[in-house]
Amino acid sequence: MPIITLLTDFGLRDEYVGVLKGVIYSINPTVSIVDISHCVASQDIIQAAYILNSAFSYFPEGTIHLAVVDPGVGSNRAIIAARQAGQFVVAPDNGLGTLLWENHPPDQMVRIENPLFFRQPVSRTFHGRDIMAPVAAHLSTGLSLNQFGPNIQPEQIVRLPLNRPTRIGKNAWKGQIVYTDKFGNLVTNIDSQVLWQEAVEDAGSCIELKAGDVHVRGLVESYSQVEPGQVLLIVGSRNCLEIAVNQGNAAKLLGLGPGTICQVSRCP
Amino acid sequence: MPIITLLTDFGLRDEYVGVLKGVIYSINPTVSIVDISHCVASQDIIQAAYILNSAFSYFPEGTIHLAVVDPGVGSNRAIIAARQAGQFVVAPDNGLGTLLWENHPPDQMVRIENPLFFRQPVSRTFHGRDIMAPVAAHLSTGLSLNQFGPNIQPEQIVRLPLNRPTRIGKNAWKGQIVYTDKFGNLVTNIDSQVLWQEAVEDAGSCIELKAGDVHVRGLVESYSQVEPGQVLLIVGSRNCLEIAVNQGNAAKLLGLGPGTICQVSRCP
Amino acid sequence: MPIITLLTDFGLRDEYVGVLKGVIYSINPTVSIVDISHCVASQDIIQAAYILNSAFSYFPEGTIHLAVVDPGVGSNRAIIAARQAGQFVVAPDNGLGTLLWENHPPDQMVRIENPLFFRQPVSRTFHGRDIMAPVAAHLSTGLSLNQFGPNIQPEQIVRLPLNRPTRIGKNAWKGQIVYTDKFGNLVTNIDSQVLWQEAVEDAGSCIELKAGDVHVRGLVESYSQVEPGQVLLIVGSRNCLEIAVNQGNAAKLLGLGPGTICQVSRCP
Repeated sequence: MPIITLLTDFGLRDEYVGVLKGVIYSINPTVSIVDISHCVASQDIIQAAYILNSAFSYFPEGTIHLAVVDPGVGSNRAIIAARQAGQFVVAPDNGLGTLLWENHPPDQMVRIENPLFFRQPVSRTFHGRDIMAPVAAHLSTGLSLNQFGPNIQPEQIVRLPLNRPTRIGKNAWKGQIVYTDKFGNLVTNIDSQVLWQEAVEDAGSCIELKAGDVHVRGLVESYSQVEPGQVLLIVGSRNCLEIAVNQGNAAKLLGLGPGTICQVSRCP
Repeated sequence: MPIITLLTDFGLRDEYVGVLKGVIYSINPTVSIVDISHCVASQDIIQAAYILNSAFSYFPEGTIHLAVVDPGVGSNRAIIAARQAGQFVVAPDNGLGTLLWENHPPDQMVRIENPLFFRQPVSRTFHGRDIMAPVAAHLSTGLSLNQFGPNIQPEQIVRLPLNRPTRIGKNAWKGQIVYTDKFGNLVTNIDSQVLWQEAVEDAGSCIELKAGDVHVRGLVESYSQVEPGQVLLIVGSRNCLEIAVNQGNAAKLLGLGPGTICQVSRCP
Repeated sequence: MPIITLLTDFGLRDEYVGVLKGVIYSINPTVSIVDISHCVASQDIIQAAYILNSAFSYFPEGTIHLAVVDPGVGSNRAIIAARQAGQFVVAPDNGLGTLLWENHPPDQMVRIENPLFFRQPVSRTFHGRDIMAPVAAHLSTGLSLNQFGPNIQPEQIVRLPLNRPTRIGKNAWKGQIVYTDKFGNLVTNIDSQVLWQEAVEDAGSCIELKAGDVHVRGLVESYSQVEPGQVLLIVGSRNCLEIAVNQGNAAKLLGLGPGTICQVSRCP
């Protein structure tokens, strides 16, 4: 039983997600469908890119990730399918896979062109339903990527200009808050590899983070190491540095969110 | 593996949707359950009727649609099951199927009366759990509609007095906005058949729409045909005329929503 | 096909729920996963306890309920698994099972300690992903509870100090509103057994409820027994006394919610 995951900006009120599933089950009734999120902000490709990258590695080999955040639907933007690390992605060519493909370079990437696998007639407003869902469903039956269109090279696809952390001193990095999760945790783009490999943090050292007026000193290993209500610095579920509040909401308490620049360095 | 879809106004916070699924799987563990929506406004049968009608044709033969928007629960309103176009519907007799059954007249319709298929004891506050979910689950095991109760005729059931577009001139129609989707697209009740069959729009002609103070001229084929932020007129995912904004939210920008009258006609 | 249900405070926007499902399917691809709710208020163990208790009995034997509302993640709070009434629960030892285990005393309860069944490396911020989901998935393959850790006794676990209804007169009880559902129904902690077994209400008698300034007289059997918009008293879906409004929202209309004390007694 292969898995198809869904990641969209469709929301949960309209019938659109259900329609994707109806289309998929009509082609492959034995697949398991997993919702990753349908609450991506409308047309927010960047948010979707972070979510896809964060969810990917928890799925088994053979999983097909169908990601439909598609502000360019009906234009001449391409639709692509890729295989990386034994799993597949089907998505518009709009940069949605940028982060994922940096971490897991594709073995093969094709431009979806074969109308044999499309739902007819193909609308110009809902390619998720008419092209991407049917392609994902057909792919889940064991077809090879070659069936769906010609190979393309990774350098031909659209990539998002995502902000990366940059070194600003021997033991100092500048990064950014890139996501606020449901708990109000402020997720930065500084991953734990940056922290450890670059010797900002090593055994016994102390790090501090500045973001706006906020200054947090010391990395904790669990929320409960500080009192309820206190601000803390932690490597969170995405393996990135997060500003959080034990049993509280850091985003609300601190008034910060995506876009805020932050600096992390060894304590002086 | 038959499919049971769920369409309710239960929301996603309470346990009610999970309870429906527990009841269904207790009877038929091999079924696939698909959520169409649980975010219908409380008791809004009209909204549910549009969603059911819009989702229906994307599901495979044999699918059972369980629709529980049921303000009359516990009263003497009937519960019905119907077969149309090879799929089934189980719902209260409150008009929820009005649109669907206009487009896909039922082959058979029964009033659910056989307590053998109910969950006991039957409450008077949650027939979705005690009657409709068990009936849908038993139906998914291959039972015939006759097992559940006596035949009824389509003219015996409740129908919603839904607004229809009306012709107001040789090439002019009056309709209504009936739905705002998650993207802020304003969906009218003017479907593409009205537009094309009635010669408002034909090859090369131009149409315009007036709704409140809003005036949109020209039907586009994809959002990207206008600049981001611009208002456009398009045949959307439901095959109906929609007022939308490329990469924006028409409902917010224009301040319109369900109930707004609109006129569509050939450009003068 | 065993069932694993999920009850969390993760919300539906982030990838966290999808990640749990990816982890589960990676271990047992044949399981059916049912979402009970992911919209528990952040860290609200009490709300989760009511929801778990209310959903439990609608699931078939063998079901595994994975409940992750875990403000103490990373601290030394234990994680436990229990079997009761033929079903299983996997949850942090924080009282989440308090109500359920009062109604269905566990046959066996173990402290989860065997790292063989954990996802490695185990983070200190997401035990739902790294410990509880893998344990639930392994349990669904038919392993016995003994595999996961040592037995513990019910008196060793954390219990929530939940408010109970108390008798305040021959035919009078004092209780509390404990939950507001999506429809605005105000659910009290006075269950139908209290009402009937204790003779507050018996055949032909009349009861009344006072809560704040609100005074409702007479128990109805279905919403439709009063006019639309009218306040009513009913035994609801959770088998508890509820204050509701026919086709309306009692919480909004009356301005009441969890914590409000209420008194129920025979009409004078």
